Amino acid sequence: KKRYNITLLPGDGIGPEVISVAKNVLQKAGFLQGLEFDFQEMPFGGAALDLVGVPLPEETSTAAKQSDAILLGAIGGYKWDKNEKHLRPEMGLLNIRRDLNVFANLRPATVLPQLVDASTLKKEVAQGVDMMIVRELTGGIYFGEPRGITINENGEEVGFNTEIYAAHEIDRIARVAFETARKRRGKLCSVDKANVLDASILWRKRVTALASEYPDVELSHMYVDNAAMQLVRDPKQFDTIVTNNIFGDILSDEASMITGSIGMLPSASLGESGPGLFEPIHGSAPDIAGQDKANPLATILSAAMLLKYGLGEEKAAKMIEDAVVDALNKGFRTGDIYSPGNKLVGCKEMGEEVLKSV
Amino acid sequence: KKRYNITLLPGDGIGPEVISVAKNVLQKAGFLQGLEFDFQEMPFGGAALDLVGVPLPEETSTAAKQSDAILLGAIGGYKWDKNEKHLRPEMGLLNIRRDLNVFANLRPATVLPQLVDASTLKKEVAQGVDMMIVRELTGGIYFGEPRGITINENGEEVGFNTEIYAAHEIDRIARVAFETARKRRGKLCSVDKANVLDASILWRKRVTALASEYPDVELSHMYVDNAAMQLVRDPKQFDTIVTNNIFGDILSDEASMITGSIGMLPSASLGESGPGLFEPIHGSAPDIAGQDKANPLATILSAAMLLKYGLGEEKAAKMIEDAVVDALNKGFRTGDIYSPGNKLVGCKEMGEEVLKSV
Ligand SMILES: CC(C)[C@H](C(=O)O)[C@@H](O)C(=O)O
Ligand SMILES: CC(C)[C@H](C(=O)O)[C@@H](O)C(=O)O
Repeated sequence: KKRYNITLLPGDGIGPEVISVAKNVLQKAGFLQGLEFDFQEMPFGGAALDLVGVPLPEETSTAAKQSDAILLGAIGGYKWDKNEKHLRPEMGLLNIRRDLNVFANLRPATVLPQLVDASTLKKEVAQGVDMMIVRELTGGIYFGEPRGITINENGEEVGFNTEIYAAHEIDRIARVAFETARKRRGKLCSVDKANVLDASILWRKRVTALASEYPDVELSHMYVDNAAMQLVRDPKQFDTIVTNNIFGDILSDEASMITGSIGMLPSASLGESGPGLFEPIHGSAPDIAGQDKANPLATILSAAMLLKYGLGEEKAAKMIEDAVVDALNKGFRTGDIYSPGNKLVGCKEMGEEVLKSV
Repeated sequence: KKRYNITLLPGDGIGPEVISVAKNVLQKAGFLQGLEFDFQEMPFGGAALDLVGVPLPEETSTAAKQSDAILLGAIGGYKWDKNEKHLRPEMGLLNIRRDLNVFANLRPATVLPQLVDASTLKKEVAQGVDMMIVRELTGGIYFGEPRGITINENGEEVGFNTEIYAAHEIDRIARVAFETARKRRGKLCSVDKANVLDASILWRKRVTALASEYPDVELSHMYVDNAAMQLVRDPKQFDTIVTNNIFGDILSDEASMITGSIGMLPSASLGESGPGLFEPIHGSAPDIAGQDKANPLATILSAAMLLKYGLGEEKAAKMIEDAVVDALNKGFRTGDIYSPGNKLVGCKEMGEEVLKSV
């Protein structure tokens, strides 16, 4: 039997509910494929702040680094919103991404035929959308130095950050994107703002230079403002998108809403080596936390990505994906994706239905 | 008779076509309201590059500064896409914005009932959308120093830019936004990324501090990734949005596509004093340039904004706005907004129809 160590970071809000459901699904799919998991649950985000005063305790970081993969729920909540920057749950997320060096964030945005009506886009526009956004996750303006708030020569406050990319940072994320596109429909769109930003000029130059190594991938470039527009106009034109940290943050959220079901979307964050970090792209939804209303499918699908991208266990991953489709085909829907004619269920019941289908 | 000096910057691609049409409309509406215009057409963008080797010639900048308002068509094209940064048409646009110090960019995104079908969003989602995006235009990462591409200690290239805002820059754009919201439905949403960026933390702090001076305006804050999502989910929730230069670039283009008719949307760029700059938000569309296919309505509506925000001539502005609605009510449509049952017309004919209605 193969054994894996999995770190669970339930975090805040609906995090614990969705993690508990996803854990069971992961366990069953693994068991059926001869895999055994040792789960270790660690404090993270606001929960860790309350417990030990920091959003990413040393022990959590160490446990994560020593495990084979990390499954994360969600972080944040009103309670910690007024905290100073370094004492906010978000800091825990940024720090664990950096500690694990998971520079490649894969965010699929797919419109399932069962859920096409959940999109605010017209059916003919939303139908068949199937893209993968490859977002750079450990560089750019999120981490660039210098940064801060200072007083300038006129005695007024000035806030500043640095958008910065070194050639090797661009190259490694571009390679992940080319490889991803190659396994999909062979189309890669690199999104930047090269008509204004120097960092984007270098980005475009490096991505373009790599293209000759991937002759089977068709590379195009698009400005970020146009990309934000094209995602609404005709999202089906996109296969794989690669972009920097901040543009990826914005565009992947936009794309997720185009699918109409942000409660459905998983993500994988990967490094060159070491464990990957897997999490739903939705937030901690404090307003519905503890009410058994959350949609656990994004976290369940994140567990599938964990199996596929994190452990290379494609069969077990496929079992989970199929089970999700099965539960949807049977008409089970949480509130966020509910439409008349279907069966409204809570977080737990949805989890049980998926579990039955695994 | 009141006389105004108007600088026309046709620019590239469809720019000259739409400017020539809008000029006629401006002239007629002005004439009927007792206004006389002296138009001065100056080289700008790619056209200026071809003529004199720079995208913003000294004479163009001087003429613009000395005029009462500037009406701009569009800039850019494949031809100049490989130019070095400082020899690209876009540089002309960035430089004229800075030379004129037009820090406040007003970008309305309105779904006209006549065009609700042009949106890719479902009718019930798009219907009634009416928002104003107030984008900071002369600061932030667009102009921040240091910037450039250098070689780091490992001998590799590094590209970098600086996102930077001083308190007074935030205050002045926030004031414009509060005033704008006050004249609209009294709701202002400030968009930032204060959970990650120091520049955004200062932004949020300054905007929040000003709110007490505008007790009649309801202020809220939203992270930019969420805003990109909410624009697709429920665009009607927004009245006035204020945000920085780069987020404004992205969100205003996204919002424009939500209206489904980017060929319809004008913009105004204003400073504390001095002439304003008025331009359609669409690009130069080189693929349809010179074919009499462009939609001139965005530029015509920019002329209306010129009258209203640039010269304080509200009556003449209203005449133009009404004439546009009239032409649409009569069923005239350019290709970009055409739907069966309407009359397909070219750029010139659309211009003539609007002219008739003025
Ligand atoms: C919570 C926040 C710091 C984070 C980000 O901006 O990366 C989130 O929006 C995300 O996309 O995972
Ligand atoms: C052409 C480009 C430099 C410009 C910008 O980014 O500001 C354009 O996209 C706009 O929004 O007016």
